[in-house]
Parts: sequence; structure tokens; C-alpha cells
Amino acid sequence: MSYFSGVTKIAFEGKRSKNPLAFKYYHPEEKVGDKTMKEWLRFSVAYWHTFTMEGTDPFGHPTMVRKWNGYRGMDLAKARLEAAFEFFEKLGVPFFTFHDVDIAPEGDHLRETYKYLDEIVSLMKSYMQDTGVELLWNTANMFSHPRFMHGAATSSDANVFAYAAAKVKKQLDIAKELNAKNYVFWGGREGYETLLNTDMELELDNLARFYHMAVDYAKEIGFTGQFLIEPKPKEPTKHQYDYDVAAAYAFLQKYDLLDHFKMNIEANHATLAGHTFEHELRYARINGLLGSVDANQGDLLLGWDTDEFPVNVYTTTLAMYEILKNGGLGSGGLNFDAKVRRTSIEPIDLFYGHIAGMDSFAFGLKVAHRLIEDRVFDSFIEQKYQSYTSGIGLEIVNGQADFHKLEQHAFQTEIRYVSGRQEMLRSVLNQYILEAE
Amino acid sequence: MSYFSGVTKIAFEGKRSKNPLAFKYYHPEEKVGDKTMKEWLRFSVAYWHTFTMEGTDPFGHPTMVRKWNGYRGMDLAKARLEAAFEFFEKLGVPFFTFHDVDIAPEGDHLRETYKYLDEIVSLMKSYMQDTGVELLWNTANMFSHPRFMHGAATSSDANVFAYAAAKVKKQLDIAKELNAKNYVFWGGREGYETLLNTDMELELDNLARFYHMAVDYAKEIGFTGQFLIEPKPKEPTKHQYDYDVAAAYAFLQKYDLLDHFKMNIEANHATLAGHTFEHELRYARINGLLGSVDANQGDLLLGWDTDEFPVNVYTTTLAMYEILKNGGLGSGGLNFDAKVRRTSIEPIDLFYGHIAGMDSFAFGLKVAHRLIEDRVFDSFIEQKYQSYTSGIGLEIVNGQADFHKLEQHAFQTEIRYVSGRQEMLRSVLNQYILEAE
Amino acid sequence: MSYFSGVTKIAFEGKRSKNPLAFKYYHPEEKVGDKTMKEWLRFSVAYWHTFTMEGTDPFGHPTMVRKWNGYRGMDLAKARLEAAFEFFEKLGVPFFTFHDVDIAPEGDHLRETYKYLDEIVSLMKSYMQDTGVELLWNTANMFSHPRFMHGAATSSDANVFAYAAAKVKKQLDIAKELNAKNYVFWGGREGYETLLNTDMELELDNLARFYHMAVDYAKEIGFTGQFLIEPKPKEPTKHQYDYDVAAAYAFLQKYDLLDHFKMNIEANHATLAGHTFEHELRYARINGLLGSVDANQGDLLLGWDTDEFPVNVYTTTLAMYEILKNGGLGSGGLNFDAKVRRTSIEPIDLFYGHIAGMDSFAFGLKVAHRLIEDRVFDSFIEQKYQSYTSGIGLEIVNGQADFHKLEQHAFQTEIRYVSGRQEMLRSVLNQYILEAE
Amino acid sequence: MSYFSGVTKIAFEGKRSKNPLAFKYYHPEEKVGDKTMKEWLRFSVAYWHTFTMEGTDPFGHPTMVRKWNGYRGMDLAKARLEAAFEFFEKLGVPFFTFHDVDIAPEGDHLRETYKYLDEIVSLMKSYMQDTGVELLWNTANMFSHPRFMHGAATSSDANVFAYAAAKVKKQLDIAKELNAKNYVFWGGREGYETLLNTDMELELDNLARFYHMAVDYAKEIGFTGQFLIEPKPKEPTKHQYDYDVAAAYAFLQKYDLLDHFKMNIEANHATLAGHTFEHELRYARINGLLGSVDANQGDLLLGWDTDEFPVNVYTTTLAMYEILKNGGLGSGGLNFDAKVRRTSIEPIDLFYGHIAGMDSFAFGLKVAHRLIEDRVFDSFIEQKYQSYTSGIGLEIVNGQADFHKLEQHAFQTEIRYVSGRQEMLRSVLNQYILEAE
Repeated sequence: MSYFSGVTKIAFEGKRSKNPLAFKYYHPEEKVGDKTMKEWLRFSVAYWHTFTMEGTDPFGHPTMVRKWNGYRGMDLAKARLEAAFEFFEKLGVPFFTFHDVDIAPEGDHLRETYKYLDEIVSLMKSYMQDTGVELLWNTANMFSHPRFMHGAATSSDANVFAYAAAKVKKQLDIAKELNAKNYVFWGGREGYETLLNTDMELELDNLARFYHMAVDYAKEIGFTGQFLIEPKPKEPTKHQYDYDVAAAYAFLQKYDLLDHFKMNIEANHATLAGHTFEHELRYARINGLLGSVDANQGDLLLGWDTDEFPVNVYTTTLAMYEILKNGGLGSGGLNFDAKVRRTSIEPIDLFYGHIAGMDSFAFGLKVAHRLIEDRVFDSFIEQKYQSYTSGIGLEIVNGQADFHKLEQHAFQTEIRYVSGRQEMLRSVLNQYILEAE
Repeated sequence: MSYFSGVTKIAFEGKRSKNPLAFKYYHPEEKVGDKTMKEWLRFSVAYWHTFTMEGTDPFGHPTMVRKWNGYRGMDLAKARLEAAFEFFEKLGVPFFTFHDVDIAPEGDHLRETYKYLDEIVSLMKSYMQDTGVELLWNTANMFSHPRFMHGAATSSDANVFAYAAAKVKKQLDIAKELNAKNYVFWGGREGYETLLNTDMELELDNLARFYHMAVDYAKEIGFTGQFLIEPKPKEPTKHQYDYDVAAAYAFLQKYDLLDHFKMNIEANHATLAGHTFEHELRYARINGLLGSVDANQGDLLLGWDTDEFPVNVYTTTLAMYEILKNGGLGSGGLNFDAKVRRTSIEPIDLFYGHIAGMDSFAFGLKVAHRLIEDRVFDSFIEQKYQSYTSGIGLEIVNGQADFHKLEQHAFQTEIRYVSGRQEMLRSVLNQYILEAE
Repeated sequence: MSYFSGVTKIAFEGKRSKNPLAFKYYHPEEKVGDKTMKEWLRFSVAYWHTFTMEGTDPFGHPTMVRKWNGYRGMDLAKARLEAAFEFFEKLGVPFFTFHDVDIAPEGDHLRETYKYLDEIVSLMKSYMQDTGVELLWNTANMFSHPRFMHGAATSSDANVFAYAAAKVKKQLDIAKELNAKNYVFWGGREGYETLLNTDMELELDNLARFYHMAVDYAKEIGFTGQFLIEPKPKEPTKHQYDYDVAAAYAFLQKYDLLDHFKMNIEANHATLAGHTFEHELRYARINGLLGSVDANQGDLLLGWDTDEFPVNVYTTTLAMYEILKNGGLGSGGLNFDAKVRRTSIEPIDLFYGHIAGMDSFAFGLKVAHRLIEDRVFDSFIEQKYQSYTSGIGLEIVNGQADFHKLEQHAFQTEIRYVSGRQEMLRSVLNQYILEAE
Repeated sequence: MSYFSGVTKIAFEGKRSKNPLAFKYYHPEEKVGDKTMKEWLRFSVAYWHTFTMEGTDPFGHPTMVRKWNGYRGMDLAKARLEAAFEFFEKLGVPFFTFHDVDIAPEGDHLRETYKYLDEIVSLMKSYMQDTGVELLWNTANMFSHPRFMHGAATSSDANVFAYAAAKVKKQLDIAKELNAKNYVFWGGREGYETLLNTDMELELDNLARFYHMAVDYAKEIGFTGQFLIEPKPKEPTKHQYDYDVAAAYAFLQKYDLLDHFKMNIEANHATLAGHTFEHELRYARINGLLGSVDANQGDLLLGWDTDEFPVNVYTTTLAMYEILKNGGLGSGGLNFDAKVRRTSIEPIDLFYGHIAGMDSFAFGLKVAHRLIEDRVFDSFIEQKYQSYTSGIGLEIVNGQADFHKLEQHAFQTEIRYVSGRQEMLRSVLNQYILEAE
């Protein structure tokens, strides 16, 4: 059966097309520099928002109209799986992502859950082979079930730590089986509600122990995908330990995990932490931590994770700028951790949302590429920092200066003030965006 | 002498121009619908940010390099005045705005201040006649001097109330003299630092008394410009009484001032109050309160008024959408209450900033006009609300329904759910923006 | 059966008691001024957070351990009802509040829902008679069901408007039947997700039409309770029309509803709108709008409604200060719209939470009363504003001044600057709180 | 002469004193555990807010009435110095802190500035010897002068880097001379305004180079005080590199600076970064980074650094809890980086502000000490995490568990859910605060 019967494969029709079910900018095989759009962008659909979530919010019941709504248990899991691959193919995305609980029901006990997972994974593998769609990453949901209410690897209960370990072990087995490119940890409950009842030191030590065990197990089974941490400052917890990229970076250094982890950076998590998306990407990039991206956008006037489809081309341009400067995302991709609004209830809205996001990132890719090719910002920056390429500046950079030498220099040198030209640079950015052919 | 000697009159060169000192979109005499761009946009330069402010911030000293830096007192005032009209003409704006303290120094006592003002106003009038540049609005600064630390019209000291009255009286005389189109009240200190020492009721009553006196005096002298209130939620006070348009609207209704006041809506004030700019414009529009606009933009990750030049074309498009729907701004205009960054220290940066803002609004105007002409959102909305055009919906609107009739209707009617299509509408908006010819 | 078998009636044991199941400050019959604590505080338990909610959050499943967990449908409703009255009595609260959907299941159609409601209401009435516990207010939930996804009275679908009318009609009948002291409207979906698809003007007009119909119906059936609007700025909607008290006040004035409505002010909603709780109370008080209170507290570092039990005695003191200045809450009360944390899973935590809130408000009441009796802030304020009690100040207040007279006064008068003494006043407040006997 | 002639030495008079110029809780020689209050609290007055700042804000001119207002240049510097030591003695604080520009005017060139500094430092040393008041820390202001507009150690201009080095060199000499206990870096301009013109990688590398040079120079001259970094997320820059303790910790680890730096944690900076004050203290403590504290408080509804005197006893209690758990602050102290409100214009308000802060921290110290002595939270936490003290939990902690063993454990173990008891713990905290004898 078809779950999206009114929709055929989404085609590129160019920017003047009035067809809402066509790409205006995303042209998969079009070359941008030395790679195709498809290779740069590595789009991925998130199973949970697109096939599992039903439109609930903290004040509202499910709204989504889906052909699989009537099913339950494994039947539901299979229907969703079938629908998912129909969707991937019609949309033309090369990747997808999931949590364990998205793809199969939980059993009454862990072994039964494993059994359900195994059956679905086997089916999934065959869909993957048939379609060529690949698994960008999988992960274990360690935040929805009540057992994780005090955390998973940072739970106050060692039995929960053990249960979490079992879940991740299973998911690493599946990652290996399905040739996942990465494995993600999002610590939704790894944090605290109040310091009054929290042993933060033990919890962080335990989190590091957990990660080391995961690294060891991956090595043991030969899973070579990239481990990723996905920072988020809060929600559902009051404070999440992986608050932002910097907090996760401090953690990885302290616990000697830097060789094994990169970051999965989400736009909406960046802004919830008080950073721009491009800040988090830049900071990760210069520290060798840019692994993958959860492509969405938040509403900066709202204080929770709205996970909207990314449509702001300023943001997609500046994000793609960092990604191009990084030489691409390596094993990572642009994963639409984005959901249609609760009022966008029809299946076709799932297409509208994803098309909006794909076009916005494809557009941003092209603008960013031209900005880099034309050295628009690079030239300006080169000029602005030129004093570090000779004389006292070069000595500073080369470690040949100390406070004595610098003081002597300061005694003799007059400082010339220069403009940072923010207004002009923003105008140029506007021109590149608005004139993008 | 020339204060901006490297700059000639800014010309429209079109979107592909590489000249940073040319307009890419603002083409003053170009028709958009039934008016020219110049008529729709009514751009205005703010004296304070462009000629008075020197680049200080709460942690930093002045940085701006200006040819008038060396002058003091009335010489400085005259130099700035000369520079201002050179700037207006080179930029090609039809309007400007000022506070009393921007244009002339304060004397040792009020009469001396009046004398300085009179001398400058006389000069200003002659510049205005020579150039055709008009005064969009003036206002009295009732927040910088220590005498206003507890408020002006809401001060706990009646002598300060009187002093504020004298200042506004003088500015209304000047408004009349210079044929100002509007008169603005921004109540920067009309609010409180702590409720512990505040009689909020008396203060609000006094604010209303003050406004009524202003209305009476304007009538007396025959000043027919529009009175405007500029809402802002906070900064410098902890809480400002004109928090947002809704708060000011409640106040105007309570104190029977609705016939005399409209709103001067600032983008950055809107977002500080938790609203989008377009929300404040829409809310003002449907309540007949849309008077004028302070055109800038804030940084939503920062909690203070950054007063940046408006360059986000999503915002300028949606703002112009409301303004077009309002039939324009009437006696109001788009006043650049915006400042170059503290690091943009050269006079030329003032041009870059204003050009960026003017192009962004001109661009937004064109996109908004096409959105309205093509009835993009109107058609969708018409369809979405069609149930109110007949049957029970029409009865509701016409006042023919009551709870009995509605309950009977509810018993018999099945509700059909429809999608709000936010993702599709955002895609279409993107297409209109990115394809704008 | 007993739902809270380990707990006996909570008694007052005084501030040194180590018994977590005793009141330290709430002593119902103790006189504070001319009323008892019970009369001033009028505590109320919210059905939804205490008996209906199960510990879900946007990322997590139910966690709460409740004896009624096993039931379904009307059996569940009856078990909860029994539990509720056991809880009210053991806690010793005089009031409770509910939404229609909290107390009875929804039927397949409206008439069936009515039937369920009628059965429960009949039982409830008998519990009320037996215990003396009264209904502070009831309301219709017009935000959880998918039919309300585009709003209720502001829905784009007239059929939904009708359905909402039917629901409110039924709740007004119930309010009359159960002698509710008030009826509350919280417009959780009365707002918008995006202006792109919203006719704000029609929606607000319809909201006013709806309220007028409610007023008419109440009059018809002889329901004399107070109508209340509960402002909230956002969540679940992006923008809620009743953003804060000021927005609701503007609305009531515009649509001539001021005679019929007061405000139900929630602490956490105040802070989400950028105001202190005491600001909203003060503003409502001086405008004659202070109706009732939803007593909780938010976490100002989180951007959503956390609905925590109110334990901050600074806030409860300043809130009670406004309430005492208002002469009490009239027909309103302090309703604990507060929930135990998702990790506080045991029934006993419900007692801990409510005891914490009741003690905090009882404490605040006593401190506020002493602050007023000692005229701590009143004396300071009287002195600070004394200039309005004679001379030019009195003329201003009496409407005998105009700009001419004030200008003459300003010419002749030197302004004396005085300190606002915020630091000293805060110290005194601390002393009153920390020394409260 | 006397600068605070109406004030005598502030004495402890106990909690019932009505004297606003007396301590209610701060009793310097009173023992709390094994140290005196004075030893635990190590209070310090900040030169800038108390003797230099004049009440300006971004919209307002100076308001403060000070006896030294009439002086200029070195006369002003000397008058302030005299006033400062009078203030320190009357208040009874053991420490003070300053930036170079607070204590002496800047000369026309660096050598002249040095000369001014030397003269003041010589006087200061003699005041210090006479009074016993010590220097908690000093620092170089590298953010106010225009030369630092693009940063200091992270400036795009190597000449500015050199100038900054000269300033820090001089301050380290002074720190040595005056026996400062610490040296602080607050990087107010070490960050960026826009990524469009910023080489973040070079800037961060340079910042590390600068710190290493400072460490080398301190070693060379034998300065053994503690180096401290003071994190702040933003203001004046859009993004500051030392965003929070975690960001600074990541930086210190990457650049091998961990042995030489601890943190100076400011309450208001913590909340601007989205953290509670106690979070930053806890995180620093468990990572061995808790150096010193800037004791103030912010307004969580305002988005800028309000630097209010700390009066919230919840916060001071939880802060002192972390400090006691840390065994005190070592060479650090509680520095009042706090300013009286712009409207608190009289010299006596400086006393009110500091007394409020000192009493609030003294009160918090006593409550925190009792909470620790009674093991209120420790017992609860010990119980909550007990599963890590034996069995599988102990194996996890001891590194004896892996995913295989944990999975086996998970297969066999049922998880028991326990309550986090947040409501009860908050009630107990309230009781400790409100019952503090």
C-alpha cells in the first residue's frame, strides 16, 4: 500500500516553479565546487518526528492524520517502516536516523524488546538494500521511560546505569549490523532537576565511565562509526551536563575521551544555550569537533525546543559556510530533527516541511560557496589581522615574545584604529543572499 | 566645509552593483503600486545615533572618529547641524528626528537652554528650507539628566513634573515652528526600579494628566501633528509603563486619550517585550494605532536594546506587509533609530549602515507588495476562515447566535480538521523573498 | 478505601516541628489583622495537577505512582473524586478547582460527555456537602482536544466556536449547580502559531463575542460568580492574546467587558511575560482587576511554565502584600496550579508540595501584614511623593495646572535630588522576613 | 577630611536592631565551625563601583553625590583613595580590589600612566599598612579605552596585544608590590561582535599565548598570587570567549593552563549564561577551579548585568554551601562587584548596600553551616546513590564493569523507582532559612 499516495518523487524544478511539491534549489547531482549537492548536504530524515510523533504538546493530544494510525505494536512498527522508506524514496534523501523506541515497541522485558528490535532491523536492512538509503546514526532513547527519570548513565541508581548500558550495547550491535555512519548520545536526562539532591561529581564520573565502556565495546565488535555527543542546555532537565559544545569539550578533555567523540550540533539547542548556530559550528570546527548536524530552527522568542523546519536562509548560509570551511561533514550529515507544527496535520505537510528545509540548505550551500570562492570575508579578515604576519605580531604567534619585549614595543608604537565594518559586511551578505542566481 | 568628503550623493545602481556606496534596491521614484518607494518608506535619520552618539557603551569610552569631535558647546551644535544636512542630502532621505538635547547644549538654567534651542532651530529651519528635508518628529529627552532619575511625568517630585512640562511645551513650540509631522513620547524613565518605593497608581494618573496637558497645549498653539507613544518594556528602568503596544493601548483607553495618540513602534523594543516586530505592527494596525516606526533590529540572544541597522529581509518584508495593509504610515515614517556598532568608527560606516537599512526596507516593500497583489496569504486566510461567511459562522459574526443556538449546532455538527500549512506558507515566503526580481 | 493511607490530617505544629507532614506556619484559625489565615488565603487544590496529571513531560512518559492508576473511564473518574476529597480533607483546604476533562471522561459525542459530567457532578456535590469543601472555580478545557488546535473562541472554524460555546454553557450550568465562586477562561489556544495564516482582527472580535455570550448566559441562569481571565503570554501557542494583565485589560476595555471580568493571575505566567508576579498583582489591583491567583512559581532560567509549588518567601510576601492592600481576594483564592516534579512520584509528595506552598503563603501573609501595620513602605512612599500634597503638586493632581503654569514654576524652582533607597528597603524587607516570629 | 562624616564604624547589633547602619548578622569574630565569619567570608570592596562609578547608565548621566566630585586628575585619585580607606575601615572589610584605571588617571602615554600608578600605589601601600586592609586582587582594565574595541589579547592588531601585555606586566608588578592574593582576568572584549569579521581560532590561540606569558612573568618576578579567570557570556561583546566556567575550563585544558588558573565566579554572570550561581560554584568546585567570588545578584527578568548588592538569602545560602564544601575560598574572597542603584545617590547608600550584602552572606554562611552539620542534603544524597557503594554499582565505579556484565545484570534486575523529593527538600531549606537563630 502507499502511505503518501498523492505524492510522486519530488523533483527539482528550479526557483520559479509554483509546484509546492518540487525542489526550487535542491538539485542533488548539481556540482558545487568539487562535490555534488547531495554529497555536501547528506540529508537525513528523523524517524521520531516524521513517523512516530503524533502532534502532542504539553497541553494537547495527538492531531496527526496518518494512514498507520490504526495499527498497534509490531504491526504499527512495520507499517511505519514501510511508510518511512516510501517517504525516503519520494523525498530523495540518502540517510535516516532513529532511536530504538522509534522503530519497535518495548517488550515486557529487555529480551522481548531485543526480539522486536531484531525483527524490525532485519526488515529495515532489506529496505535499505533495496533503496540504497543509509543509516546516518542510531541511538538509544534513555529519557522517555520512567526508569530514566533520574538519568541514565548519570542515574542515582546503578541498576539504571546497567539498563542503559544494555540498551546502548544493543544499539551498537544494530549500528554495526546496519552500517551506521555514526552513533549519537543525547543526554536528555543526564543532568539534574535540583542540586539539593544531586551528586554532580559522581554523576559526571559515571557518564565518563559509560562513554569509555561504549568506546571499548565498539572496538570489540568492530563498529567504526563516529561517536557523537549532542549538546543541549536544558529541557527536559533543568540543567543538562552537555550544556553546549564548550561544556562537552571540557568534559571530553577531562575524561580523556577526545579521540573518540565529535559533536552533533543542533541549531535549536545552540540558541537555547544562548549561542548562534554558527557559533557552535565554528567553535566545534576549530577544535576538530564538528561531526554532524541536527538541522532545524528554533523560535528565539520561545524558551523551549520548537524543532521547526529550517527555513531561515541567513542561518542555513552561515551554517553551510562553516561546514564548507570544515571540508564537509565527513561521516556526518544534515539530519532534520524537525517536526511539522501540531496544526500541520496532513501527511503532505511532512513533504512541505522537508522540502522547505532541503531547499533552504541547498540555497545556503550555494551562497556560502560563492562567499568562500570570492573570499568575501576571508579577504577582509586577512587584512584585519595582517599585523600577526610580520614584526611583533609574528613574534607573538611564533612564541618569540614575552612581556618585556611587548612592553618595549608598546612604549614605542602608536595604535591605529580601524573599523570592523559590520554594517558593510552585512550588506554584502544580504547581496549574496538576495542575488543568488 | 564637508564632513563626509569622500562621499557623493548615494545613487541607485541596482542589485548587481559592487559599489558599497550605492543603493541596490532603494530607488526613490520607482512606483510600487500607486505610490513611489519614497512615499511608502518615508525614511528618516535619527540625530542622536548618527550625529550625537560617540560609541560609548556601559563598559567603554567613545570611539567614533568625527570631524566635529573637536568642537564644544554651540560650535559643536552648529557643526553637527551642518554635518547632518550634508548627510541627509547625500543619503537622500526626506526626514529626520531629534531630541532637544541632541541639537543644542543645555544651559545653566532653562531660559538659557531655550536660547540655545532657538538659535539652532532658526538655523535648522533655514537648512530645511534649502534642502526640502522635513522633520518627522521631535521630542524632549526626559531621561538622561539626573533630575529625571525617578521619572519625568511619573516622577515622585512635582517639580520634576513641572520641569518636564516646560521641556515638552518648548518642543511643541518647535514642532509647530518646524512643521513636525508628529510628536513622540518615549518614557525611558516612566516606570520603576522597585515596587518597594513606588506609588504606581499616582504615577500612572500623573502620566495621563501630563498627556492631557500636552494635547491641550498643542490645540492651543495649533500644532496638528500626530502624538505618538513609543512602547518599550525596560531599559533603562526595570519596568517601563508603556511596556508594549497593548499596555499603552490599555492606558490610552482608561484615561480617555485614544483620540489623540498612536504608536511609534520600534522593532527592537518589540522583541525585548517578547513579541515579533510584525506582531506589534499588526496589533497596532487592527486597533487603529499604527502611527510610525523606529526601524532597527535587535539581537534576540542579547537582552538589551542593540539598535542595529535593520538588515534582516524577513523582518522588513513582514513589517512592510503590515504597513501596506495599513495603507501606509500616514504622517509617520521609517525612522532609523539605529546605530553603527562601536567598532564601526569611520564616518563612512554611517552611510553603510543607512544604505543597508534603506535597501532592506525597499526590498521588503517590493516583496510585501507582490505578496499582497498575488493575495498569497489573503487567499489562504479567506479559505481558512470561510465558515464565518455563512450559516452559524455568519450568525456569530452578526450577533445572532447565543449559547443555546450554538449548543444545538454543536450537537449536530461534525468538525473537520484542516491543516494550518505553516511549512508550506514559509516556503512560499522564502520563494517570494529569494526570487524577488 | 484510603488513597493516602499513611497520612492523617495535617496539623499545625509550629516552625520548629521536624515533622514533614505538619504545617510550620499555616495555622488556619489564627488571626492576622481582622481575618483568620484561612479567610485571607482561601487555599485551593487544582484537580488537574494533583489527580489527573501523571508525570509526563515533552520527552517522558508517566511516572506517578497512584492507587487509582489501574482504573479506566468512569471508574477512574470516581476513584479520583474519592481520592480528591480525602486529600482536601487531610490537607485542610477549603476550595478546589477543575476543568471539565479533569473530572470525567469525554464521551464519543457531546451528549455522552454531558452524561458523564452529570453523574460526577452529582457525586461531587454530595462530597462537597459532606465535607464543606467548596468550588473556587471551574472551567472548560478548550485546548487539549485536536478540535481546538486552531483555537476555541478564536478558531478559524465556526463549528469549533460552537462546540466551545456548548462546553462553556455546560460548565456554567455546573458552576451554578455547585455554587462556584468564579468561572475562569484560560485561552491556551486563543492566539496564533504564525501571523501568515491568521486573521487576528476577526479572532479577537470573536473572542469578545464569545465572552459576551457567556455573560448573557450566566445572567440568564442566575450564575453570579465572578468571571476571570487568566493571562499567559505563550505556550502552547506561539502568541497568546491574553499575553499579560495589560493586554487583557486593553481587550476588556475595547469590547466593553470591563464590568464582567477580573483577572486570575498566575505567578509563572507573569514571569513568562517578563513581569514579576507582584507587578501583575499591583497592576491588576490599581485597575480593579485583581480577582484570583494561581499560586505557583516558575524557574526564571527556564522558558516554559514549570508550575512549581511556591516556596520562595520573597515572592509570597510581596504577593500577599498586594492582596492585603486589595482587602483580600474577594471571591477569589490562592489556587495551587502547581505540580510535583516528575521525579516526585509518590502520593506523599503531593502533601509535601502543598504543605510547602501553604506554609510559604502563610509565612508571607504574616510578614506582609507586619510590613503594612508598621507602614514600612507606606511611610517611605508617603514621604517620597509628598510634593503632590500641596502647592504645584496638588494643583497637578487637582487638574488646576497647565503647561504655562508649570513652565513658570520650572523657571523659578530648583530641584532637590533624593535617594530612592532601594538597598536600605531591601535590607528592611530581609529583616522582616528573617525575623518573622 | 572625612568623606562619610555621618557614619561611624559599623557595629554588629544583632538581628533585632533597627539601626540601618549596623550589622544584623555579620559578626566578624563569631566562630562558625572552625573559622570566624571574617575568615570564611573574606569580604572585599570593589573600587570601581564604590569610588569610581558615578551613576551613569546607557541612557543617563552621572547622579552620584560624592565629596570627591569636584576633583580632577591625580587630586581626584588621591581623594578617592583617602575616601576608600575611610570606607574600608568604617565598614570593617579586610580586602579590596581594583582595575588600574580605577585608582589613577591615564597619562598621555604609557610611561606617564605608570608614573601616576606608581605614585598612587606608594600611597596605597602606606594606607594598607596603616589599616591592615589587604588587596584581594587587582587587574588591568582592557575594555574601556577605544584601543581595546576589537579586544586586548584577542585584538586583531598585534600592537594592541603588546599594549595589553604592558598593562598586565605593570599590574603584576603592582600585585607583587602590594602582596595581592590573586590576579584576575575578565575578558570583557575578548570575544566578538560578529563572526563575519572574526578569526576565532587565531584569537583563542593568542589569548592562550598571552596567559602563558603572564604566568611566565609572574614566576620571573616571584608573584605567587592565584591567577583567576572571570567568565561572562556577553556584554559588552556579543559573545565572550570565557562564556561560563565550562567554556573557560575547556580553554584551560586545551592550552595546558590548568595548573595556573582558577575561576572568579560572579553571580550575575552565571545567570546571564543561563546557570544558577550555585551551579557555577558547584561545577568549579568539583573540578578544582573555585578560586574567588564576585558577590552580587542580577535581575533574572533583565538581560544585562545589573550588579545589584546580593540580598537574596536563598542564593547566599546555597553559595556559602558550596564554599563551605570547598573548605573555603583559599586565597579568594567575596568581592562586592555590586553597585548601588542609579537613584541611590547619597554616600550613605554605599553603606546600606554593603551592609545588605554582608549581612546576607553572613546569614547564608550560618544556614549553610547548619545544613552541612546536620547533613540535611548529604544524608539524602548518600541514601539516593547508595547503589554505587556495593555490588554492580561499586563495580561500575571501580572500573570492573563492562557492557557485557551490565547487560547481564539488566536482564536479571528489576528497577525500583524512588522519589527525588524536591518539594520536601525545598521545605526543609525554607525551614532552615526561616528558623535560623
